[in-house]
Amino acid sequence: MATLRVKGIAFDMYGTVVDVGAVAEACKEVAPDAAAFNAQWRAKQLEYTFLRSLMGKYQDFWKVSEQALQFTAQRFGLELNAEQRRRLMEAWLRPTPYPEVAAALPRLAARYPLAVLSNGTRKMLQAGLEQSGLRPHFRWVITADQVKVYKPSPKVYGLAPRHMKLKKRQILFVSSNSFDVLGAKSFGFTVCWINRTGAPSDPIGPLPDLVVSSFDELVVAVS
Amino acid sequence: MATLRVKGIAFDMYGTVVDVGAVAEACKEVAPDAAAFNAQWRAKQLEYTFLRSLMGKYQDFWKVSEQALQFTAQRFGLELNAEQRRRLMEAWLRPTPYPEVAAALPRLAARYPLAVLSNGTRKMLQAGLEQSGLRPHFRWVITADQVKVYKPSPKVYGLAPRHMKLKKRQILFVSSNSFDVLGAKSFGFTVCWINRTGAPSDPIGPLPDLVVSSFDELVVAVS
Repeated sequence: MATLRVKGIAFDMYGTVVDVGAVAEACKEVAPDAAAFNAQWRAKQLEYTFLRSLMGKYQDFWKVSEQALQFTAQRFGLELNAEQRRRLMEAWLRPTPYPEVAAALPRLAARYPLAVLSNGTRKMLQAGLEQSGLRPHFRWVITADQVKVYKPSPKVYGLAPRHMKLKKRQILFVSSNSFDVLGAKSFGFTVCWINRTGAPSDPIGPLPDLVVSSFDELVVAVS
Repeated sequence: MATLRVKGIAFDMYGTVVDVGAVAEACKEVAPDAAAFNAQWRAKQLEYTFLRSLMGKYQDFWKVSEQALQFTAQRFGLELNAEQRRRLMEAWLRPTPYPEVAAALPRLAARYPLAVLSNGTRKMLQAGLEQSGLRPHFRWVITADQVKVYKPSPKVYGLAPRHMKLKKRQILFVSSNSFDVLGAKSFGFTVCWINRTGAPSDPIGPLPDLVVSSFDELVVAVS
């Protein structure tokens, strides 16, 4: 990576730094098929970020997540009371870091300044990072909420060079979400895809500069 | 509808006027689970229209469909040869109208000028409408390709008032795709959702003005 002159690393949050395992767990309390419920909720949440961005009708990620939950409950024929909805939503405030993340981040932070760049609201991101003890490793916590549009809009990615005071190519952007890898590469970052599941890459843009299967591999690759 | 002063009707094409049944049929030749293959292809095709629009990296719907097919084949572990890919893609040129459409369109066309407003390329739309004998009912065939961005961008919907020389609210926009209903309503059309499957409505915007389960119900509603 030295030849790529990377001088800082920005990470996607949900699905990359943290698993949304706590959310899946919370779904078990309301849905017989919790995995399907959670998958539908997550897919709808993502769809709403795309649609709202394209329609120019932004609302923040907490609100979008609530609306996606409302749709999902209806689709599954579940009537959730206020308490159930609250508990499901609050699971987003205590996501679980992937197992190797806590050990890998300090090693990365020793060499590069680190940032989070996420669709999540500031409140969601701060809560998640503090809850999991990861907050001290990140110099910047950057949210799409600052520009009122979602990834993969270049406006979101453009926040990182501005905050980090680095050029696009000097930032290694790390994500597990393939749409995010596409958007980041299209924007002009140096990009690492953490492909935990061996998914095929999307054939609609340039390939990421680096593909790894975990944070441990990332540490080796940038050392 | 008279009180809404509707003076023209614009239809979404794929999933609304025509079923993509021919595509599902063609999938049977290559995939053991043709329904799952087709569903993944369609979902990826849609995702790519969202992503390309948000990234500002437009390519036309034929190209996007080919790329979605490439991803889907890889995801299903299928190596398709050039002839198989050609046959799958060509199924998009001969979609099947929903059963009641051929009888309903002339009744609607007798009262209102009709348009198609679709993400499809001009070639795809012309071929599909001529193949199915529906072309004569439409005064306008309008494609997102004219503005190089996809639904639900207001730029696409904005083509209809311009071509039809009507105000937004004077146009009844008809779609079976809920994201399209959202986008059209957000743009300012009078909107009819053809909900063939009894799906829940998305809770992120104003409701459509009219919900029907088929073209027959639409004919009754606007007569």
